[in-house]
Amino acid sequence: MGMVGGGQGAFIGAVHRMAAALDGEIELVCGAFSSSPERSKASGKDLFLPEERSYGNYQEMIETEKTLPEGDRMDFVSIVTPNHVHVPPAIMALQNGFPVICDKPLAFSLAEARELRSVVEETGLLFGLTHNYTGYPMVKQARDMVKTGALGKIRKVVVEYPQGWLSTLIEATGQKQAAWRTDPTKSGVAGSMGDIGSHAENLAEYITGLQITELCADLTTFVEGRKLDDDGNVLLHFDNGAKGILHCSQICVGEENDVNIRVYGENGGLEWHQLEPNTLIHKTQDGQRILRTGVGDLCESAQAHARVPAGHPEGYLEAFANIYRNFARTLKSILNNEQPDPLYADFPDVHDGVRGMAFIETTVAASASDDKWVPFNGK
Amino acid sequence: MGMVGGGQGAFIGAVHRMAAALDGEIELVCGAFSSSPERSKASGKDLFLPEERSYGNYQEMIETEKTLPEGDRMDFVSIVTPNHVHVPPAIMALQNGFPVICDKPLAFSLAEARELRSVVEETGLLFGLTHNYTGYPMVKQARDMVKTGALGKIRKVVVEYPQGWLSTLIEATGQKQAAWRTDPTKSGVAGSMGDIGSHAENLAEYITGLQITELCADLTTFVEGRKLDDDGNVLLHFDNGAKGILHCSQICVGEENDVNIRVYGENGGLEWHQLEPNTLIHKTQDGQRILRTGVGDLCESAQAHARVPAGHPEGYLEAFANIYRNFARTLKSILNNEQPDPLYADFPDVHDGVRGMAFIETTVAASASDDKWVPFNGK
Amino acid sequence: MGMVGGGQGAFIGAVHRMAAALDGEIELVCGAFSSSPERSKASGKDLFLPEERSYGNYQEMIETEKTLPEGDRMDFVSIVTPNHVHVPPAIMALQNGFPVICDKPLAFSLAEARELRSVVEETGLLFGLTHNYTGYPMVKQARDMVKTGALGKIRKVVVEYPQGWLSTLIEATGQKQAAWRTDPTKSGVAGSMGDIGSHAENLAEYITGLQITELCADLTTFVEGRKLDDDGNVLLHFDNGAKGILHCSQICVGEENDVNIRVYGENGGLEWHQLEPNTLIHKTQDGQRILRTGVGDLCESAQAHARVPAGHPEGYLEAFANIYRNFARTLKSILNNEQPDPLYADFPDVHDGVRGMAFIETTVAASASDDKWVPFNGK
Amino acid sequence: MGMVGGGQGAFIGAVHRMAAALDGEIELVCGAFSSSPERSKASGKDLFLPEERSYGNYQEMIETEKTLPEGDRMDFVSIVTPNHVHVPPAIMALQNGFPVICDKPLAFSLAEARELRSVVEETGLLFGLTHNYTGYPMVKQARDMVKTGALGKIRKVVVEYPQGWLSTLIEATGQKQAAWRTDPTKSGVAGSMGDIGSHAENLAEYITGLQITELCADLTTFVEGRKLDDDGNVLLHFDNGAKGILHCSQICVGEENDVNIRVYGENGGLEWHQLEPNTLIHKTQDGQRILRTGVGDLCESAQAHARVPAGHPEGYLEAFANIYRNFARTLKSILNNEQPDPLYADFPDVHDGVRGMAFIETTVAASASDDKWVPFNGK
Repeated sequence: MGMVGGGQGAFIGAVHRMAAALDGEIELVCGAFSSSPERSKASGKDLFLPEERSYGNYQEMIETEKTLPEGDRMDFVSIVTPNHVHVPPAIMALQNGFPVICDKPLAFSLAEARELRSVVEETGLLFGLTHNYTGYPMVKQARDMVKTGALGKIRKVVVEYPQGWLSTLIEATGQKQAAWRTDPTKSGVAGSMGDIGSHAENLAEYITGLQITELCADLTTFVEGRKLDDDGNVLLHFDNGAKGILHCSQICVGEENDVNIRVYGENGGLEWHQLEPNTLIHKTQDGQRILRTGVGDLCESAQAHARVPAGHPEGYLEAFANIYRNFARTLKSILNNEQPDPLYADFPDVHDGVRGMAFIETTVAASASDDKWVPFNGK
Repeated sequence: MGMVGGGQGAFIGAVHRMAAALDGEIELVCGAFSSSPERSKASGKDLFLPEERSYGNYQEMIETEKTLPEGDRMDFVSIVTPNHVHVPPAIMALQNGFPVICDKPLAFSLAEARELRSVVEETGLLFGLTHNYTGYPMVKQARDMVKTGALGKIRKVVVEYPQGWLSTLIEATGQKQAAWRTDPTKSGVAGSMGDIGSHAENLAEYITGLQITELCADLTTFVEGRKLDDDGNVLLHFDNGAKGILHCSQICVGEENDVNIRVYGENGGLEWHQLEPNTLIHKTQDGQRILRTGVGDLCESAQAHARVPAGHPEGYLEAFANIYRNFARTLKSILNNEQPDPLYADFPDVHDGVRGMAFIETTVAASASDDKWVPFNGK
Repeated sequence: MGMVGGGQGAFIGAVHRMAAALDGEIELVCGAFSSSPERSKASGKDLFLPEERSYGNYQEMIETEKTLPEGDRMDFVSIVTPNHVHVPPAIMALQNGFPVICDKPLAFSLAEARELRSVVEETGLLFGLTHNYTGYPMVKQARDMVKTGALGKIRKVVVEYPQGWLSTLIEATGQKQAAWRTDPTKSGVAGSMGDIGSHAENLAEYITGLQITELCADLTTFVEGRKLDDDGNVLLHFDNGAKGILHCSQICVGEENDVNIRVYGENGGLEWHQLEPNTLIHKTQDGQRILRTGVGDLCESAQAHARVPAGHPEGYLEAFANIYRNFARTLKSILNNEQPDPLYADFPDVHDGVRGMAFIETTVAASASDDKWVPFNGK
Repeated sequence: MGMVGGGQGAFIGAVHRMAAALDGEIELVCGAFSSSPERSKASGKDLFLPEERSYGNYQEMIETEKTLPEGDRMDFVSIVTPNHVHVPPAIMALQNGFPVICDKPLAFSLAEARELRSVVEETGLLFGLTHNYTGYPMVKQARDMVKTGALGKIRKVVVEYPQGWLSTLIEATGQKQAAWRTDPTKSGVAGSMGDIGSHAENLAEYITGLQITELCADLTTFVEGRKLDDDGNVLLHFDNGAKGILHCSQICVGEENDVNIRVYGENGGLEWHQLEPNTLIHKTQDGQRILRTGVGDLCESAQAHARVPAGHPEGYLEAFANIYRNFARTLKSILNNEQPDPLYADFPDVHDGVRGMAFIETTVAASASDDKWVPFNGK
């Protein structure tokens, strides 16, 4: 694996590396960790990489690695830069024969996302997107229960992603994570809706198997001086007639990363909170049942995506590692000319990424519109 | 106290009686418990009332009681009938000099509610409305914290009231509670929004001290054959610029009565769940603090509305009893020509009831409208 | 009902009155609320009693009430005084024909308790003891599940009652509740073990239907200057071979009244916490099921001891009221020469009280002993 | 790193490997994964090791690796075998110059543990023991709060480790994990007390900084046909006068791995549960405060042992990885002739291991004894 971005001081780059390392199936062999060649080298040294494989920029990395003999050169590229530097390295990597796994949201804009999709389709190479919350075993269990009819026809979905870390104008204090996320030249047209709202949208559609068809949005910028939304409330209509609410916020003081979802069908409901990710609550007219990672009769996928027996809490990095492991195993099957195991060929792809970008742009447009319902076209 | 409604088999009538009895400050002396004189007598007998004070209808009760000597006759009327029988007995009671405490929502329609308000204002008599969730000590604590600025300016409110008991067409099975609540001739123009959405609206405004100014609503009837909404999602705008989400549902399978609210301001947040009513979570950038009924330095009102020391859970009936006790103490002050103690003169009144009816009618209209934002006039 | 004790400023007297009042089946008609006749009168006035029925002492109350015509005179006596004033009024009441309901622990000493038991047996009158935690619906459900074999043979019991309010020498500050509880001339030989350890013992035996046969105890007085234990750890052996741990404490800073119990059998386990009393967790090898007051297929007793539908939290006063209501209904059946309904003839009695006193004295002796296991004879 | 044990089908070997891999600071370079050379080779192949470094037994591994040039050969040995195969490879590794990290409990017997300690002391080489629960950030926070006096003098400790997986005789079904743990020839003199009780002892002493001085034990074998204890209740006395309860069980049906601890001092209390490891509850007379990994003003160690910001749950593998990372960083400092950073020189060592073995043997002896209190000598 070769990495683009994620140099010293970055948050998500280290997460990707730990996630990739956890199972011993992926090795970091090179990187272009920073737009500054010196910082890239320094980062590579911290990571025990030979100096010549810490590249000054992604172009150099892709071109040089391509010349290395198979077996030596990187097998795929991992992109962990801010949003506006997702698509250019992704397209270049693909066009030079390297599969890509990329942080979310997919792109800076929907147009750019669609362009990337074309390249993925043309090259036929594997592409993964790290909507990591879908990597949790109990999210897989939830999806399976919906799919196998445990809830009956789905009627209502409530998905939330409240955070509090942007309650004040911390981008003005030099906080690096806040700075690019609130900068429209790096983040795109949306703030909270792009950074976390798109996770919520992806999670809701992943679990329910439904697609949003139209929405009504109310985005707000609460913090004075901020350039993008820091809060959003959205009403949803799904393709089977289900109704939904999605809200995300970065001004909910005291909230960490409380991604959570409730899904109700004709016969039952489900509730899952990322902050207690090993618990899935199954609700019926007769009461509630607590499903737990590793306990009892879970679906095959929930079992395959847990690493330790019941009672040993698995968390964010393990879920993230499931995305990487699934991507790597699927890639290995392809490289070996084998049929990928559907159990592992389960990770967000470029189509999810395009849907996410469409969601972001549609909510921004809908919020500005006087129309109550705005159609959502995720293609 | 004389009661209208609440005969054998009723749910809320028994609740009102237990709430009134708890503190030994209110005595049930008569009732018109049923529209059937026989059932009214039978109910009265169960309640150890003398036969002559179990009346065949409310008209008879009001007229007869009025003739009794002061001290013997009922001091006020409690109305616990279905919605369409709130206003007629209330108006008659008031016009005959009896103060009234009434179940919610206030009326069958907004027009009827406004008519009642006029009578309350003309007679100058005390009127209480049992939006009982405002009776919980930790709701009072939440209100106090907002009022005294612990959260700073309020930005976001999320209030929910999910239930699951109407997930199927149980009104067709003869279930009495379901039957009238889903019948537009008894319940009014709304189902879930009237029965429980109005509680959520009242709770949000009570805690925040804010008023809703406009809203966007999406009501649904999920259960085939049902005549009124059983689910509603509403976006809210408040008078200080805060944004909100209100959702209520009676088709969330497996949910009991999970009324809950989260309020976020510039400096902090609060979270309260009716199912664990003695806990209030105070959120700040430095973490969460658990406030508990009876523990530590709570506001005067939170202390005055708890009956037992910390660690002895108080529940729904105690909160309901707080509404009754506050009404009774305020009435006693008035009858004694004393200034009511503001600590106890704290219960929903006819103006809250008119706001609630306006909320119900506005959400129904907004849901049917193509306009995104519909003004809310609670007067 | 006539009350002994519970005058102005008392805590538990008010609890007994609210518990008795809640269902409208018991009326407070007289009392000897204080050893000071003036304070007794003042308390009676607060409670709307006629002056002549606020007696100066319990002797006067019993003697005078006895002379009143049946129907007018009190039907039974409720004793809510400190421990050393339980047995004398109880014996006098019984010997004058009045049934008795009494606060726990039963007596000042085991010898005194056994004397009272003799009087109960001689008079044949009804006697109730307010170990109120057994009044919770979900405790009844737990008992039923053990009895009907849902857990299989019981192997292990862990019962706890931690409090923190006596972490410092507050008895030296004039705090009335602390003062008598830590005074061996009023409380008896034990502090925490008598006040709350006996609740834990009663709860464990009530739920499991097992009896303790021997125990090993380690009581401690942590707060300097205190005269009685404020903490106790006890290992238990039960009559079926099950093992147990009981611990109670009044120096666990920050704990309210966290009475809780876990019971494990060959096939399943149960967990209940008084601070969330409407939840009972049923544990099996396949995971956990949440049983809730009012939800699903609970046992007849759990249903009969709840007053409101699911989702309306019931608490301490409701559980306490269940003890009173059961006592009153059983008494009514006896007075009417009817067979008491076993559903309601379910409240702690004098034999439970003697067991409790034996438990208190045995743990104190065992703690002082070098013997590892001390036999427990609860007769 | 070279591994002893942990071949195909093992549970804890895979855990050690993931823990070692997570941070990219440790590389698995060889192993003797099984006592069967074929299975060892097969396991090595799964792990992408060259065939020649998958050894047929640990002796071969140690001898061969020793001959490799520095830089190529393994830097230390990780031992993940059943208890009876901890000490022999550990001693051989140490005597051949290899530092060792070893699974717990340290040895098959106390005598063997002491022998190993002598070798560690003679060789002066680094030795680590994977009592992994001490690796959690919030456990470090708890230890820091006790040490810096936030709770005042400690009075009471309650530590529990209930499991349910051995509720039946699954060792008779061929379940590999159960088989050796319940076999006295592999596990030692204790079952549950060795496997999990020693974790509880270590956790309690780590957090409080106190040492157990005497104890009273009641071990039981509940499952018929089992050869070792599957449940244990222990009363503890600590060196500062604090009292404690430790219980562990493998027959608590429905419990996963609910390691938890409560510590109470004169001024406050702490509560931590491994199943929600990112939460630490701080209890005071004024209420409870929720401390969370990554939130607010945590101690330096709690911050240094978390990898991701607040709201990204970290779990068992991350805590385990903290033990490995700390061992590796300390080793690196030593190899570089630098003073190890005390922040990372924080992992259980051979002395903790000897204490653990002493605890195991003392509880077994105490349980069989008629003496109430048995001295605990952890040296």
